[in-house]
Amino acid sequence: MAKIKTIGILTSGGDAPGMNAAIRAVTRAGIYNGFSVKGIYRGYDGLISGDIKSFTTENVSGIIGQGGTILKTARSQAFKTPEGRAKAYETIQKEKIDALVVIGGNGSLTGAMLFAQEYDICCIGLPGTIDNDLYGTDNTIGYDTTLNTIMDSVDRIRDTAQSHERIFFVEVMGRDAGFLAQNSAIACGAEAAIIPEDSTDVDQLARFMQRGIRKSKKSCIVIVSESPKCGAMYYADRVRKEFPDYDVRVSILGHLQRGGRPSARDRILAGRTGVGAIEAILQGQRNIMVGDRNNELIYVPLSEAIRKDKPFDKKLIKVLDELSI
Amino acid sequence: MAKIKTIGILTSGGDAPGMNAAIRAVTRAGIYNGFSVKGIYRGYDGLISGDIKSFTTENVSGIIGQGGTILKTARSQAFKTPEGRAKAYETIQKEKIDALVVIGGNGSLTGAMLFAQEYDICCIGLPGTIDNDLYGTDNTIGYDTTLNTIMDSVDRIRDTAQSHERIFFVEVMGRDAGFLAQNSAIACGAEAAIIPEDSTDVDQLARFMQRGIRKSKKSCIVIVSESPKCGAMYYADRVRKEFPDYDVRVSILGHLQRGGRPSARDRILAGRTGVGAIEAILQGQRNIMVGDRNNELIYVPLSEAIRKDKPFDKKLIKVLDELSI
Amino acid sequence: MAKIKTIGILTSGGDAPGMNAAIRAVTRAGIYNGFSVKGIYRGYDGLISGDIKSFTTENVSGIIGQGGTILKTARSQAFKTPEGRAKAYETIQKEKIDALVVIGGNGSLTGAMLFAQEYDICCIGLPGTIDNDLYGTDNTIGYDTTLNTIMDSVDRIRDTAQSHERIFFVEVMGRDAGFLAQNSAIACGAEAAIIPEDSTDVDQLARFMQRGIRKSKKSCIVIVSESPKCGAMYYADRVRKEFPDYDVRVSILGHLQRGGRPSARDRILAGRTGVGAIEAILQGQRNIMVGDRNNELIYVPLSEAIRKDKPFDKKLIKVLDELSI
Amino acid sequence: MAKIKTIGILTSGGDAPGMNAAIRAVTRAGIYNGFSVKGIYRGYDGLISGDIKSFTTENVSGIIGQGGTILKTARSQAFKTPEGRAKAYETIQKEKIDALVVIGGNGSLTGAMLFAQEYDICCIGLPGTIDNDLYGTDNTIGYDTTLNTIMDSVDRIRDTAQSHERIFFVEVMGRDAGFLAQNSAIACGAEAAIIPEDSTDVDQLARFMQRGIRKSKKSCIVIVSESPKCGAMYYADRVRKEFPDYDVRVSILGHLQRGGRPSARDRILAGRTGVGAIEAILQGQRNIMVGDRNNELIYVPLSEAIRKDKPFDKKLIKVLDELSI
Repeated sequence: MAKIKTIGILTSGGDAPGMNAAIRAVTRAGIYNGFSVKGIYRGYDGLISGDIKSFTTENVSGIIGQGGTILKTARSQAFKTPEGRAKAYETIQKEKIDALVVIGGNGSLTGAMLFAQEYDICCIGLPGTIDNDLYGTDNTIGYDTTLNTIMDSVDRIRDTAQSHERIFFVEVMGRDAGFLAQNSAIACGAEAAIIPEDSTDVDQLARFMQRGIRKSKKSCIVIVSESPKCGAMYYADRVRKEFPDYDVRVSILGHLQRGGRPSARDRILAGRTGVGAIEAILQGQRNIMVGDRNNELIYVPLSEAIRKDKPFDKKLIKVLDELSI
Repeated sequence: MAKIKTIGILTSGGDAPGMNAAIRAVTRAGIYNGFSVKGIYRGYDGLISGDIKSFTTENVSGIIGQGGTILKTARSQAFKTPEGRAKAYETIQKEKIDALVVIGGNGSLTGAMLFAQEYDICCIGLPGTIDNDLYGTDNTIGYDTTLNTIMDSVDRIRDTAQSHERIFFVEVMGRDAGFLAQNSAIACGAEAAIIPEDSTDVDQLARFMQRGIRKSKKSCIVIVSESPKCGAMYYADRVRKEFPDYDVRVSILGHLQRGGRPSARDRILAGRTGVGAIEAILQGQRNIMVGDRNNELIYVPLSEAIRKDKPFDKKLIKVLDELSI
Repeated sequence: MAKIKTIGILTSGGDAPGMNAAIRAVTRAGIYNGFSVKGIYRGYDGLISGDIKSFTTENVSGIIGQGGTILKTARSQAFKTPEGRAKAYETIQKEKIDALVVIGGNGSLTGAMLFAQEYDICCIGLPGTIDNDLYGTDNTIGYDTTLNTIMDSVDRIRDTAQSHERIFFVEVMGRDAGFLAQNSAIACGAEAAIIPEDSTDVDQLARFMQRGIRKSKKSCIVIVSESPKCGAMYYADRVRKEFPDYDVRVSILGHLQRGGRPSARDRILAGRTGVGAIEAILQGQRNIMVGDRNNELIYVPLSEAIRKDKPFDKKLIKVLDELSI
Repeated sequence: MAKIKTIGILTSGGDAPGMNAAIRAVTRAGIYNGFSVKGIYRGYDGLISGDIKSFTTENVSGIIGQGGTILKTARSQAFKTPEGRAKAYETIQKEKIDALVVIGGNGSLTGAMLFAQEYDICCIGLPGTIDNDLYGTDNTIGYDTTLNTIMDSVDRIRDTAQSHERIFFVEVMGRDAGFLAQNSAIACGAEAAIIPEDSTDVDQLARFMQRGIRKSKKSCIVIVSESPKCGAMYYADRVRKEFPDYDVRVSILGHLQRGGRPSARDRILAGRTGVGAIEAILQGQRNIMVGDRNNELIYVPLSEAIRKDKPFDKKLIKVLDELSI
């Protein structure tokens, strides 16, 4: 493999707070270590169309605290096809990009893995997703901010729940992973969480309610992971049927969960893994994600990172159970 | 009328941030001026059922910064009936309450007016509603906080709108009044606001969009006042049909708009009007709302305060128009 | 006077949150109404040195929510001299600037007034200062944000004050005007405020303390306007001497009061007055400040705006007194 | 040892955000597992004086999001003496407290260790300090919130630093440990951090400055750990002497760093370790701190926890260096 001189960066998939801090870190650490850095716009689509710009340290000034991504992002359909990836590689050659840093979640890193298998290109992934569902890293960039955003929103909703003595079902992001729902439920002091990792049937829900009634708690918050079939609406309807005396409401937090100024943790994680991506390149690593495991940076093969079975700490279920009495 | 010795306080209708600051202000100014103060729970329902507690200054310690209302609130159906109000007056006599301070919006002050017309009771209203739709006061307690909450939420959504180059229709509270929608649109730098005061037809919406396309703005935020018929969903569907190339999304902010720590303005307004309520009682005022007009406290007859035609500053439409180019 | 074609904008004096929103508003409303707009950097210094750039609507994209000022700011010594202003006017002629919009406080608007008296130039002031001490306007851009920043900081300090049962003297900005101190004291539920408008001697302070002791309140917050002689340190020392049993602490909030994302009110005020500045120019106004009085924009002669005797609402002293029992 | 029936909880030393969430967690998990719970007020002083109250789950309702500690706190001088601890043990016997959960930092856990060595009492420590300087735990309760508070404050100060092109020395807490300074510097995008773990001499500082000048960066933020001798004032004075052209300012963040609503991480850590404290008691553990190591709860002997040499990740120095170019 020829010596790496030029690094391309892109953000892909759903935007996450801290992506800008990661772009800044890769750019600055890259330049610090003597590389040229190019920003690729709109994810893999920009790689295919050649929407690319040379970056200096100034291009990333003042962005550390901004949500979203200055490189913009997309879920590229074209890059999922061999033809799309072929065109992307043409751009890579034309722009003389020797290594590609991809900041994104599962789908984005799957794209990077395929690309690296088919072409002679060094791909380094950074874990950028609010869902925290990447294998091999304790935390992903964006997760901590979103956890706090959800907590702030539910703290507000609780004011109303208590004032009006209502039951609220609050739907949060995390279609395939309950990290956000379970942890935000603990952080908010919610009465229960309904997550994909733990089947919640109506019996279980009835138990929550009965425990509440027994305790004469008059208001109640249940956090529900979004789900095509059984989201917050579904559970609210069930409870309305079984407990017609309760005033049951639904709040779907929606897109506001993605944005906002990144938290300290997310900015630090972005900084550490961004510097780590350049180190990985210097060490000759290829086709890995830079993960954060037990407070150390590790290199996780991309094929591992995208495994769908990131372990969920079941003890958190017990914690919520004991604290919501 | 006999000398007033005991004042009852209640919060009624939808909760609003700053209601606690108002409860604190009425309680403390009341005690400072030699009155006894009683807290009435769950709005008019508590007046009917006699759910009442004597308050000292300590009962209102540490609540100035809390959203919701420690007195809880309800939209009482019973109080809308003559029988309900008769029972409420029995409580008033039994508890020896000489004056009633009601913190709430339109419906709540309508109840206070009816009660004052039927019975010999001094009713003082404080404007407590996030909608800012009470006549005779420039601001209502809760409005400023909610404006900031909406702004913060839309700032987050814009991160995603720009990163993904999408059009967002964001639905905010204010069914009958566009104060929240129009002002938050200006505060967020939104491209347009759809408000009840200004009929927005599809032609108009098409103009927004075309202006956007002409300018090659790639993302766009439209704030929509909630409406039973034409909310954010309705407009999003129209735009999707006419501009199929755009990626159109909807976010309904919902209940999180009501809660949260009150802003400085709302706490100060609560403090000033709370002290003003006690002054009004000392001056022999009855059946008025304490309003804030041109930075002076004024006494607005309850029958005026509930008029539905609070003037809307049409210049704000021009301001948004010029700033969203 | 010839027809105005080109408008120059500058920010001057201490930075205030919302200055960027005002720059955006003047630029966009200017372009909307057919003017050319030029940004002048570093206040009057940039006018003297010719540090100027043509602005399109894109130069002000994405800045509505940013603290500080993208035009940067300075307290120009040179502009205080006739020679400095002569050089500034040379730039005005060279750049063909027909009207100057100055966003700043007392000193900055004094400069604008002198400039307008000496040269044939239309000067329009916008009230941009955290201190709220400009005559003829109810609010200045930056004041509301700073009030909220102080409140948030004091809310944090109160956590410690209560946990440790301490007396805190918190020093806030506002050397010549107690708007920030008095209003933040009400918003925070502080026990007292020490402001320039109301002489506080040690007797008075002793009364605060004795009232506290009588009530067996164990913690206490006093907000103090900064002052060269009698700031928070001074009062803390006096109290330490007279009440040696108390644990007395000082916190000087300092520069963090100036920055941060502007509040909704400040962004809306910036938008309204920015559009108002262009309207004033279109109407042939000269040498005025656009003020916000009773929710209407008014034109205040610059010589009025800089009067040092903006009335302070003494009723706020009574409000704090009654609420801090 | 007799079966444990009653658990006492106290908070001690400097208050930290999340202490209330920890009190809530210990109380609820304790009651859930069949124990009686008693709250001890004002740290060890309350144990000596017998200032104690029985707790139900309701005593800890609504406190999860509050800064400070409802149990109040103190740095007890009396408990440092054998006589003080003897009196405390009398209270323990009188109140029939079988186990003591102490939430605090180094000094507080040292007290717990001494007490446990001298008397037959099960002492369990929870790591509650903003400084993150307890050995054997990756995070302490309060650290994450304070990190975010510092970041928010410095983000504000940077607005002014950039607008006025100034150098700011910002002093943060952490007298003996640079965790807060180093990590907040990375999170804020500061140009440098001066920490106890890494001797910064004036040469080094000169290098920062020269690098800045070389790059024609006009504004600069340096985060300084508080220090009796060489705090922010000291470094600012040095720089003023050597670089008289720069406009150098100092901001000492002070007490506001301690308070505020706890972050999601701190509330979750408080919840997990609080439940862990009860588990430890059930398992017969004594005289340990419940630490969080690599996302698992571990039991750290109190004598270990108070070791003063918690390792500092030197890689963070490299991260800041590369990112601040």
